[in-house]
Amino acid sequence: MNVFYLPDATEGMVSFSEEESKHCVKVLRMQEGDRFCVTDGKGSLYDGELAEAHPKRAVACLSNRRPGYDNRTFTLEIAIAPTKLNERTEWFLEKATEIGIDKVQLFASYHSERRAANVERFRKVMIAAMKQSIKSRLPEIEDVVDFNKLVKQPFDGQKFIAWIDDNVTDQLCDKYEKGKNALVLIGPEGDFSPEEAKLAMDNGFIPVSLGEARLRTETAAVVACHTIQLLNQMKRT
Amino acid sequence: MNVFYLPDATEGMVSFSEEESKHCVKVLRMQEGDRFCVTDGKGSLYDGELAEAHPKRAVACLSNRRPGYDNRTFTLEIAIAPTKLNERTEWFLEKATEIGIDKVQLFASYHSERRAANVERFRKVMIAAMKQSIKSRLPEIEDVVDFNKLVKQPFDGQKFIAWIDDNVTDQLCDKYEKGKNALVLIGPEGDFSPEEAKLAMDNGFIPVSLGEARLRTETAAVVACHTIQLLNQMKRT
Repeated sequence: MNVFYLPDATEGMVSFSEEESKHCVKVLRMQEGDRFCVTDGKGSLYDGELAEAHPKRAVACLSNRRPGYDNRTFTLEIAIAPTKLNERTEWFLEKATEIGIDKVQLFASYHSERRAANVERFRKVMIAAMKQSIKSRLPEIEDVVDFNKLVKQPFDGQKFIAWIDDNVTDQLCDKYEKGKNALVLIGPEGDFSPEEAKLAMDNGFIPVSLGEARLRTETAAVVACHTIQLLNQMKRT
Repeated sequence: MNVFYLPDATEGMVSFSEEESKHCVKVLRMQEGDRFCVTDGKGSLYDGELAEAHPKRAVACLSNRRPGYDNRTFTLEIAIAPTKLNERTEWFLEKATEIGIDKVQLFASYHSERRAANVERFRKVMIAAMKQSIKSRLPEIEDVVDFNKLVKQPFDGQKFIAWIDDNVTDQLCDKYEKGKNALVLIGPEGDFSPEEAKLAMDNGFIPVSLGEARLRTETAAVVACHTIQLLNQMKRT
């Protein structure tokens, strides 16, 4: 099933963006009458039928608006320092979108390898992953902020900092309470500095371990994301 | 900390392979007296000191043999159909090695995109991930076997098939029993055929879902791997 992204989707006749028109008509060579799925990235899916196969401004008829399977009762936000290699951050974004996430906040900290990011490129990775996994919600992504600012922002839920330190023995999987909103900070390749960890703790972040394994930044982020999802998904807890 | 892989490691003087010698002496330009860590891939780590900086046959002195942090009381095996794009399978191998896995079995089934694999290349990805995450165990990887043969092989533990079917409502995270050996089958891009799923069930595999999200093959494999690890890692279950 082909899926297209239309942020302004509504039942009835709608026009595709130039990018989605090109993908639909030129790349996939869809013809009038062909059927597909449309996501608005805000929680709804639609059935679609191509009404006008225009390569720059395709028109479709949408019907059967319904909530996607990915509507949750909690929110999950992960704040991550972009990795030296962009493709590693992009892998995280793709996998987190598939597994389920609401917001990614980029940040720069003391040991950061990168202090700037191409957020538009990152958003495209998430749009592609949303379409591929037929999700109705496009996760937000926010441009790089300074770590010291980030930890002072208000957040309505449990706040965690994944910090590799011998004194940190609590695990995210043991500290997270099912159903609660969660924000997890994932450090850069060189980890957080002790001062940064202290600042986070002073601002209400719970220091947690993701387990004994030494994980790369993007692996730690995927593991944190899946930990929160799994704990909410389990029937027996 | 630099980590080298020496399958025949033992305390005392040892010779590096040509590949590890090159990496140590030519790439990293290590000199006599420099210190590092050595993994034997079989459960032990050593402290090492370079004794002879030969570019093809470096010699080191090993001491302080100790068990790695990644020794487990259960085994985890994942059987996966190689993805169309090799880099997606390689990403799974890297992440699974980081998170923790004992064996990867490749297989070909009805909807498989690939029926052959470059196992040596895949093993190199796992060796690099083992060294990067300072693991003492190198996961095994077995070349492609036919699905129909695979499901008939004996396995001492719980056997699961991750199958996307509306009738499959049990989840891996609810069915797995902590501490038990686990084998999880992950299907190709086109999933298992109903006949294959039936054959697996007839041979004792429990059909399970990994959750509501529609996951790519390699994402499903990482999620299955992390699910088993997390359930063993949690203190509260």
